[in-house]
Amino acid sequence: MPKPSPIASPVPPAIAAPDSAPLVAAESCGDHLLLRWADGLEGRFHAAWLRDNSPAPDCRDPGNGQRFFEIALLEGEPAVKGARLAEEGAAVELVLAPDGHQTRYAAGWLRPYAEPPAVPRRELWGGGAALPVADWPALRDDRARRLDWLRDLAARGVARVTGLPTEPGSGAAVIALFGYLRETNYGRLFDVVSRPDPINLAYTGLALGVHSDNPYREPVPGLQLLHCLSSDAEGGDSIVRDGFQAAERLRREDPEAFALLAGHEVPFRFADRTAVLESRGRLIETDDGGRVTAVRWNNRSAAPFDLPFEVMGPYYRAYRAFGRLLHDPAEQVAFRMAAGEAFLLDNRRVLHGRTAFSGAGQRHLQGCYADRDGLWSTIRVLERELQS
Amino acid sequence: MPKPSPIASPVPPAIAAPDSAPLVAAESCGDHLLLRWADGLEGRFHAAWLRDNSPAPDCRDPGNGQRFFEIALLEGEPAVKGARLAEEGAAVELVLAPDGHQTRYAAGWLRPYAEPPAVPRRELWGGGAALPVADWPALRDDRARRLDWLRDLAARGVARVTGLPTEPGSGAAVIALFGYLRETNYGRLFDVVSRPDPINLAYTGLALGVHSDNPYREPVPGLQLLHCLSSDAEGGDSIVRDGFQAAERLRREDPEAFALLAGHEVPFRFADRTAVLESRGRLIETDDGGRVTAVRWNNRSAAPFDLPFEVMGPYYRAYRAFGRLLHDPAEQVAFRMAAGEAFLLDNRRVLHGRTAFSGAGQRHLQGCYADRDGLWSTIRVLERELQS
Repeated sequence: MPKPSPIASPVPPAIAAPDSAPLVAAESCGDHLLLRWADGLEGRFHAAWLRDNSPAPDCRDPGNGQRFFEIALLEGEPAVKGARLAEEGAAVELVLAPDGHQTRYAAGWLRPYAEPPAVPRRELWGGGAALPVADWPALRDDRARRLDWLRDLAARGVARVTGLPTEPGSGAAVIALFGYLRETNYGRLFDVVSRPDPINLAYTGLALGVHSDNPYREPVPGLQLLHCLSSDAEGGDSIVRDGFQAAERLRREDPEAFALLAGHEVPFRFADRTAVLESRGRLIETDDGGRVTAVRWNNRSAAPFDLPFEVMGPYYRAYRAFGRLLHDPAEQVAFRMAAGEAFLLDNRRVLHGRTAFSGAGQRHLQGCYADRDGLWSTIRVLERELQS
Repeated sequence: MPKPSPIASPVPPAIAAPDSAPLVAAESCGDHLLLRWADGLEGRFHAAWLRDNSPAPDCRDPGNGQRFFEIALLEGEPAVKGARLAEEGAAVELVLAPDGHQTRYAAGWLRPYAEPPAVPRRELWGGGAALPVADWPALRDDRARRLDWLRDLAARGVARVTGLPTEPGSGAAVIALFGYLRETNYGRLFDVVSRPDPINLAYTGLALGVHSDNPYREPVPGLQLLHCLSSDAEGGDSIVRDGFQAAERLRREDPEAFALLAGHEVPFRFADRTAVLESRGRLIETDDGGRVTAVRWNNRSAAPFDLPFEVMGPYYRAYRAFGRLLHDPAEQVAFRMAAGEAFLLDNRRVLHGRTAFSGAGQRHLQGCYADRDGLWSTIRVLERELQS
C-alpha cells in the first residue's frame, strides 16, 4: 500500500473530479446550498463560493483550469436560485444569482470541501532517529525510489544521499531532481572549509551549534544541501535537530514560552564587505490552525532584539528555554559524512550544526540553497505519473 | 540633503557605534539597567539582553560581528551586578551575573534601542502617480543614480527603466545590479507572448486584471522584472496598482473586511504537465505592529477557499470589497512600454496587469523573478559606500 503523501492536497484539480458516493439530496437555502451524499455526509456551500468556483467553460480555462472570472467585479449578491441532482447523483446542477449563471458540479469534486481538511504527513523525530537515506544512482534513475525519498524528506525535513561524485559542483544534480538552485551573495554553491580571515564563522574549524541558515534573508532559504567532497580532518561530524519536535515539546511543557516565541518578530542580521542583510521573523511560525510551520534559530546572526521592555524579560526566558531544547544532545542526531555523501534539509524546520574539526586533515563541504515549492511540486507530479 | 532610506535599520553593526550624546547616568536595577543620556533620553535594558549582546571579543567575532555566545546554554539568571560610566559618558562598563561577565557598551550603540524604532520610508500611491524611472546607462554606470532608483523602488514598490537593449536575455542585467535571478519551472527568463495552447493565461492576448504573480509558490517571488523586447500590437498596455494603498484604504473604510483578509489563510494552485504548485497565505499580511507587509491577489490561481462555513460568508464579502478597490481604474497607473523599456515591481506589494492586445502586431515581453533581500542589501551597501 502506498504511504500517505506528505503533501496535503485539499485542492483538487479545477475540473477533474475523483469518484465518490453519489449525492442523494440538494437543497437551496438562499445564501448557501445543502448537499447530502449517499453515505450520509452532509456539506454546506456558500453561494458566493459556488459562483466563484464554477467550472463552466466561460469561467475557467478548460485546459489549465485557470479562472477567467473575477467575482469581485460581479454586481449584486450571490444566491442559490435552483439546485437539482443530475446523472443519478453524480452531479448537481445549479442556477446562481445575481447573474443567473448555470453550472454543474461533480459530486466527487465538491466532496473534499464537506470533509475535514487533509493533514500532511509529518513525522517528528528526536535522538536515535534513523534518517532517510538513498543511494545516488537509484535516486537518479528510479522514479519510485526518488518519490519515496522525496516524501521522506518532506515528512521528516531531512534526508541523506550516498554514492555521489566528489567533483566540485556535482551536488547540484541532487537539487535538479526537483528544483532550482537559489543563488545568493555566497554564490550558487558555497564551500565550507577553513579559511584565513573568514567572512562567516562557518568557514572556520570551530564547532557550530545547531542553527537554521540565513534567517537574515528574505525569503529564508527553504532547502539546504550539504555535500561532502572530502573529509580526513578529525571531528567535523554533522548534527541535525528537528525544530518542529522541539517546538511541540516547548508548547507542551511551557505553553507561555511557546506563545511568546510564536507571537513576536525579532531581527537577524549579517554584514560583510559586499552585503548587509537584515530580516525579521518569529522564532516559531504557526498557521491558522496553530500548526507549527517554521522555526528560526541562529545565535550568530540574531540581532539585538527590539521588543517592548515589558515583553523582553519573559521573551528572553522563553528564548533560553527553547534554546535548551534545541541544544539538548539527547534529541540531536549526529553522523559523519564520508566523501560522496550529502544531506538535504528543510531549513525552515531542521537545524544543523557540526562538531569542531582540526586543521590537520581536510574537510570540504559544498552547500547550496533551493526552494521547497519545487520539492512539493515534484512529489505531486511523480505521484500523478506513478499512480496513473 | 539625502532622502531618508526606505530601509529601516534598527540593527546597528555589531560593534561599530555611531556618535551620540554622552551618558550621564547608569543605574543597576537588578534585572535591568537604567541609562540616561545628556539630552534627557532614558532607556531600560534587560540584563539578559545586555549579556546576550555583549560586544566583548570572547562573545563576538571582532571582524564580522557574529555571535559565538549562546545565552540559552548559560546556567543561572542574568542580572546587572555593576554599572559605571566610562570615557566621560561615551561608554558604560558592566558586570553581569550569572557568570561575572565584564563588558563595555558604547553610548551610541545602545541609544537606538532607547528610541522609538525607525519606520522604513514607504510612499503609497494611487491613480495619476508618476512612477520612478531611470535610463539604463545611468543606472548601470552611476552609483548615486542607481541608489536613488533602488530606494524609490523600495519605497514605492515599482520603478521603470528606459534605454535597455532589446536582445532576449538582456533584462537580466537589471537584476544583476542588486541580486540574482530566481529560476522556476517557467525558466530563468520567461517569454510573455501569445502562444497556441498556452499553459497559462498570461501567454494569450487576453486582458489580465491586476494580480500578484505566483501566489501558489513558496516562497512567493519578491521582485518581478518585465522587459519589453518588441511592441507593435494594438493594446497590451501595462497596468500597476499599489496593493498597500488599497489595503490601507480597506482598513480605513471597512475594518472588518481588512481583519478577515489579514486573519485567514487561503490556498492558491497552479498545475500543468510538469508542475503542481500549491501554497497558502493571507491576502493581506501584517507585522507585529499591524503594518501591512504583503498582499496576495490572483483570481486565476485562487483555489477553492477552505474556510469554516461561518467564516466563508463574511470572508467572501471582504474578498469582493478588496477586489473592487484593487480593480478601481481610478487608482491604477497604466503605461505603454516601448521596446527597450522595462519595469521592476515588488510582487508582494504592487499588482500588475495589462489591457488586451491583438494578434495583428507583435508584443513580446520577457520576465524574470528575483528576491528582495538583494535589493535591500544593495541599498545599504551603496549607502555605506556613498556616504562614507
